[in-house]
Amino acid sequence: MAFTYGQLVSGGVGKQLATTLGLPRPARLRRHQLGGSLVPGAVLVAGHGDAPVAERVRHLLEDAGVQVASLPSTSVVGVVLDLTAIETPADLETLRSVLGPALRTLAPTGRVIVVGRPPEGTGSVSQAAARRSLEGVVRSVGKEMRAGGTANLVLVDDGADAGVDATVRFLLSGRSAYVSGQVFHVGRPVGELVAPADWDQPLAGKVAVVTGAARGIGAAIADTLARDGATIIAVDVPAAGGPLAEVANRLSGTALQLDVTAEDAGARIVEHAQARHGGFDIVVHNAGITRDKLLANTDADRWDAVLQVNLLSILRMNEALVPAIREGGHIVHISSIAGIAGNRGQSHYAASKAGVIGMTQALAADDAVLAKGITVNAVAPGFIETEMTAAVPFATREIGRLTNSLSQGGQPVDVAETIGYFAWDANRAVTGNVVRVCGQMLLGA
Amino acid sequence: MAFTYGQLVSGGVGKQLATTLGLPRPARLRRHQLGGSLVPGAVLVAGHGDAPVAERVRHLLEDAGVQVASLPSTSVVGVVLDLTAIETPADLETLRSVLGPALRTLAPTGRVIVVGRPPEGTGSVSQAAARRSLEGVVRSVGKEMRAGGTANLVLVDDGADAGVDATVRFLLSGRSAYVSGQVFHVGRPVGELVAPADWDQPLAGKVAVVTGAARGIGAAIADTLARDGATIIAVDVPAAGGPLAEVANRLSGTALQLDVTAEDAGARIVEHAQARHGGFDIVVHNAGITRDKLLANTDADRWDAVLQVNLLSILRMNEALVPAIREGGHIVHISSIAGIAGNRGQSHYAASKAGVIGMTQALAADDAVLAKGITVNAVAPGFIETEMTAAVPFATREIGRLTNSLSQGGQPVDVAETIGYFAWDANRAVTGNVVRVCGQMLLGA
Repeated sequence: MAFTYGQLVSGGVGKQLATTLGLPRPARLRRHQLGGSLVPGAVLVAGHGDAPVAERVRHLLEDAGVQVASLPSTSVVGVVLDLTAIETPADLETLRSVLGPALRTLAPTGRVIVVGRPPEGTGSVSQAAARRSLEGVVRSVGKEMRAGGTANLVLVDDGADAGVDATVRFLLSGRSAYVSGQVFHVGRPVGELVAPADWDQPLAGKVAVVTGAARGIGAAIADTLARDGATIIAVDVPAAGGPLAEVANRLSGTALQLDVTAEDAGARIVEHAQARHGGFDIVVHNAGITRDKLLANTDADRWDAVLQVNLLSILRMNEALVPAIREGGHIVHISSIAGIAGNRGQSHYAASKAGVIGMTQALAADDAVLAKGITVNAVAPGFIETEMTAAVPFATREIGRLTNSLSQGGQPVDVAETIGYFAWDANRAVTGNVVRVCGQMLLGA
Repeated sequence: MAFTYGQLVSGGVGKQLATTLGLPRPARLRRHQLGGSLVPGAVLVAGHGDAPVAERVRHLLEDAGVQVASLPSTSVVGVVLDLTAIETPADLETLRSVLGPALRTLAPTGRVIVVGRPPEGTGSVSQAAARRSLEGVVRSVGKEMRAGGTANLVLVDDGADAGVDATVRFLLSGRSAYVSGQVFHVGRPVGELVAPADWDQPLAGKVAVVTGAARGIGAAIADTLARDGATIIAVDVPAAGGPLAEVANRLSGTALQLDVTAEDAGARIVEHAQARHGGFDIVVHNAGITRDKLLANTDADRWDAVLQVNLLSILRMNEALVPAIREGGHIVHISSIAGIAGNRGQSHYAASKAGVIGMTQALAADDAVLAKGITVNAVAPGFIETEMTAAVPFATREIGRLTNSLSQGGQPVDVAETIGYFAWDANRAVTGNVVRVCGQMLLGA
């Protein structure tokens, strides 16, 4: 009898019991559907002062055929609140007076998007305080949302407003279903912002390399990028050759059997991509391993294996991939909650996944990378439902599932959707970001 | 019958039961004692490459009369590991090979201190990755420590090694009992680093203003700074006049009845300090309130009250205090886990406490503040045992107590000790820091 907590409380006596006891009942999340609308209802757009981003967002929504609501609004499915112009914490009253009432009538799977500016970008102590306050509010609101709703903060550099569109679109859409309580940073674009001809095919014409693509989250990444128009080069170890070929065939891509820790792994990916596809635009370094053990009992081999696969191999491959990737390309790394918060029994894994954050930020700022207009970002998954997590003991698994604002585990597709967003050519203003896909998991640093 | 979980499992049948079930039993923490030694045993000091900080730390320990152990060590009570010279993630093998074995024999209430450099301070992607890895390891090790042990990371800017002494001393000592899983940043000092004549009186001759000093954490701050040699100006609202006078009399300080939100609050503090004490060196902005309510139900008055007391009043007071505080002084703000992670029902409180972080970082970098050699830092308390938390319902309280690496709530003195450390003249290399005093609470952003 393999019941999950979610199944137990979603109907019948379990549901009654959960309601009586005040236990969380996970909502059905709104995920992306081909041909669907951006959001299933009207979006309230408001702001403080001249609110330059609000004006952009209104146009964006009108172009996308979404109804824009103004104050006082009736029920909406999303709120975009432009607070880029706040000057002191007293101005946060705008946030309360708009968001408070809106939360009372927000439709299920609603979206709250607050737009601000980075605290570091002002010489005023009072303005820096006000800007930083937004993070506290948004993370609190994420924890107050009901029925599958999410809340996120977008910090836009001065003069970089044009880059905000992709992120607002992503956050309103079903693609961000499991992303909540996060802070996105939008800077000056590293290359031209190019909106796709069709938002259901934002990766049309692109070639994407995905490592660890034979199964689990890697296979979901391949599926999702292919769904969005990309041609897939599916990479995995020779031992996974069977399922790897299946993924590649299903998606009309190509398979490359490869140990990512091999010295020539990067060169072989480049060679394959050029010979079979004429080049590549997107790299997703998804391959990774765990070898859990307390540090006191971790021998050199175990330590080295985790660091080699999860970090050193990527550093080495990127040295070959960066010169070869097409201009304006996108590199995406996979970090982890463990890399942010640490985890008992995972000092090596956490070292590798924290290292991924350092690598992401440094590579994003690297001269050669900037010269080619390449973005480099990372996702940090929380509790994601995979074969691996299905094997975890019941209690541990249910704690992982429940200790987040959405009271459920994420799906592999949720991780894949955020990776896809990082790979949009419309999204060249987001680089060096680390975004958690975790339903606002309580764990953190 | 008011048993806490900690009392139930610390003896008798409860202890047996807890052991059988594998439940956490909180250890007795090692706290600071007047006249006691810095650490009750030997400290292993090791490093990678030329390890310049290890050399400093050996001298520091010898001066403090602490036995320095080298590899291979027998049982020690602390490990200081200098990894400032690591160049790639492969160099992390040094960490595993030293720390792994040491953890197996580390004495109770042990200390792990890893010293590195900030990832941002290098042009090498590989080195940035390695440096960032340390954060993942240390946070994991914090979660693996037993018997009241802690693990922290100190990141020292290039050329700023002299400033590390105060932080290493603090972390080895009992003053940091409830500080674990944190990252400290040591930069170039904003003024001369002055070691005290007596480390049991590091604040001798200083005048410290403490707001909200009549009770709870504020009273503990006053007690602790006075214990360490400071003369206290205890500030609180007129309604708390009785207990405020008690604190001031007990510590041979002075009391100032004052509403911190008054327009002239800063000016009145300056006036009092100059008239009664000839000036002041330390300010601790401890006064704060909560008015918990979901944002959807928070009216303008409730919102404004929290922001006024917790943030706007401090911004206003600092405008009067910064010009008046003595050169080389220290300002300390109080943030909160809620300001970092957000909290359900506390959007306004989280706004104010996140704002405190923005204020702290901006004020630390402010020209007028730097010109006077003033440090500005913040503590972010986790679950601290006070009259307020004693009133919290049992289950909620026990969750707060147990969901941290030390399996217990902190004491008000733990918050006070970190504030004291921020106020040392030996510690002018730490500014703009936000340090959690939370036993490595699991909650985070």
